[in-house]
Amino acid sequence: MRTTLPEAFPAHTPAVPQIFTIVLSHGPVTRAEIARRAGVSPAAVTKAVRPLIEAGYLVEEAGEDLPPALGRPANALRVDGGRALFIGVKVTGDSAIAVLTDLRCRIRVTRRASLDDRSPDGVLATTGELVTELLVEAEGFGVQVRGIGFAVSGDVVRTDGTVRYSPFLDWRDVPLGERAAAATGLPVTVENDVRALTVAEQWFGAGAGLTDFALVTVGAGIGCGLVVGGRVVSGAHGVAGEIGHLSIDPTGPPCHCGNRGCVEAIASDPAIVREVRARTGIHVADAAEALALARGGDTAARQVYARAGEAIGRAIGSLVNLLGPERVIISGEGLAAHDLFADRIQDAFTVSAFGTAARCEVSTHPLPFEAWARGAAATAIQSFIGSDSRSGGSGWR
Amino acid sequence: MRTTLPEAFPAHTPAVPQIFTIVLSHGPVTRAEIARRAGVSPAAVTKAVRPLIEAGYLVEEAGEDLPPALGRPANALRVDGGRALFIGVKVTGDSAIAVLTDLRCRIRVTRRASLDDRSPDGVLATTGELVTELLVEAEGFGVQVRGIGFAVSGDVVRTDGTVRYSPFLDWRDVPLGERAAAATGLPVTVENDVRALTVAEQWFGAGAGLTDFALVTVGAGIGCGLVVGGRVVSGAHGVAGEIGHLSIDPTGPPCHCGNRGCVEAIASDPAIVREVRARTGIHVADAAEALALARGGDTAARQVYARAGEAIGRAIGSLVNLLGPERVIISGEGLAAHDLFADRIQDAFTVSAFGTAARCEVSTHPLPFEAWARGAAATAIQSFIGSDSRSGGSGWR
Repeated sequence: MRTTLPEAFPAHTPAVPQIFTIVLSHGPVTRAEIARRAGVSPAAVTKAVRPLIEAGYLVEEAGEDLPPALGRPANALRVDGGRALFIGVKVTGDSAIAVLTDLRCRIRVTRRASLDDRSPDGVLATTGELVTELLVEAEGFGVQVRGIGFAVSGDVVRTDGTVRYSPFLDWRDVPLGERAAAATGLPVTVENDVRALTVAEQWFGAGAGLTDFALVTVGAGIGCGLVVGGRVVSGAHGVAGEIGHLSIDPTGPPCHCGNRGCVEAIASDPAIVREVRARTGIHVADAAEALALARGGDTAARQVYARAGEAIGRAIGSLVNLLGPERVIISGEGLAAHDLFADRIQDAFTVSAFGTAARCEVSTHPLPFEAWARGAAATAIQSFIGSDSRSGGSGWR
Repeated sequence: MRTTLPEAFPAHTPAVPQIFTIVLSHGPVTRAEIARRAGVSPAAVTKAVRPLIEAGYLVEEAGEDLPPALGRPANALRVDGGRALFIGVKVTGDSAIAVLTDLRCRIRVTRRASLDDRSPDGVLATTGELVTELLVEAEGFGVQVRGIGFAVSGDVVRTDGTVRYSPFLDWRDVPLGERAAAATGLPVTVENDVRALTVAEQWFGAGAGLTDFALVTVGAGIGCGLVVGGRVVSGAHGVAGEIGHLSIDPTGPPCHCGNRGCVEAIASDPAIVREVRARTGIHVADAAEALALARGGDTAARQVYARAGEAIGRAIGSLVNLLGPERVIISGEGLAAHDLFADRIQDAFTVSAFGTAARCEVSTHPLPFEAWARGAAATAIQSFIGSDSRSGGSGWR
């Protein structure tokens, strides 16, 4: 499919990925500003960006009105998004969504397919077709696809591309990265879907420019991506951001995890559907029907949403008391019920937040269906530029 | 008192504090290992350590049996602890404790005084006397004191040395750092006491070598210091680590913060004393008497401790589900009741922890009374070597 090997990204020193990421998130940006954000000397920035400019990944913006200082050019730098393409694939329990993005993670083409067979073979066959279609599309841009990202919910080991456990797919220890790389001949990155989405928000979305924020996703499950000190938290044992399993009530409903009163057991779509059925006696088929019932004015159904909002707000309060982020962004398909629980989230958060932690802004951010796949592409970009290293000094911000 | 100005620490580039901190925490350590941990090139390490060796802050260990590589010396480096002295002061509601430490935060002299007057003037007078005594002691070592650290519970703004709010001292907006610096002529660092203790544990204690851990302190309050990705979390608005204000039961006892069911309202010493009185009808005077009653076999009193242990364990479960640390260290004067609640902490944690997060080790670590003051000294060391900067790239690990 490809006739030439991809050129490697010129990351000769650990500072290069960090600096490139700053330009990705904040560009156009001057070398002086890059130096300030990276905490390195302006000379180090000048040295690091030179090969990136030569290789066409960075371009100088002309016409900046800042005077040159100490012989360094004052022109702002930005990433040439058209310099490379990436594919992001999100796999859910019933469908696969794939996007073709440029180096700035702007979506160029989107493809979707239903997933009848959730086995690893079935998922690889379906996603393989989507990837093939996108590779054909990529030829029209005259630029190479440099990597593929897969976003899967559950316990994912990014370093070796293994899906350790995914409840929605019913997978255990599937070497997805290895198999997809063998099938496509391209570098493959596999990441937990919420962490992938968090990377996209941090670099290109509602978290851009923030060093400490949380992304809470509500819907089929309740997930959370955390950025602390500019880094996505992944946990020493692969688990982090499990806000859905914060127990906020020891007498609450049992959760599939074995605990009681978990947020996910109260505020996820399946929990809401179950509770609406129990309280109203009406056998709503899914979250959409439960929502319609509540919107229609059914008091019991509305109380279920209010309780869900309170659970989410209390859990966000716990998160904020521990980490003190600048912003908490609530997103996910569960936001469809936003009008029914937003006030309760805010009220419960306000009561829970300790002291000045209450200054944290809690906002909502709609999530287009292709955003998860875009998150997967963001992790592929991250791998390509070498900013996914876990070693201390080369972390990206 | 001092006749010469302190020499500045030779931190010419942002990499120097980071590298020095690695040697402080891990030394003796080779340049190659420093480079690996810092994520910088071996050449950068060689360049950074040269002025530190020349100024006597680092020394080479002779006799390492590793072969020299690429012309770089393979000798391991360690910090010369005797090169500088620091003073750490912990202020509680009824006493002040001050320690004189060396550059490796080893305590040389300890002084303690009761605090009859908690006003800023009263605290500055009492701590001023302790500091003067320690400066006299320092003369005997023939080395200068390079900085003073103050550790105060509450909302502390380290960057400007202000105590924004301290409930135990009943202070609001006290410019402690500025006043103490004016009185002593020395650089002063003011930090929240739990964060100060966390710095000491990270550099010199149970957290050394870990990039992700939590320190939970139990006693008069329930506090928590968090290290995520090698950095102490301080929160965008000054609040972080408030595990004491995680509400684990919406029907639990009211907390002074305005919420209900906070861990601090169940498991702090005052909460335990109050609940033991309520359940037994015996007017225990303090935590020691409550503990004696429970140890004596009083069932109701023992249940109060069991409930406290469960609350702490559930809160640690929430913390671990969000952050996935390698280790949670429980410490503080409340550990005196360890035998009464340790099993309940572990049980509640195990039920709460999600998936592989349960692999996090929960351990206890006794806290000598001077440890808080040592934490304050650690922050003074941190400021001296320039590793307290908040800018991205110069963070210490």
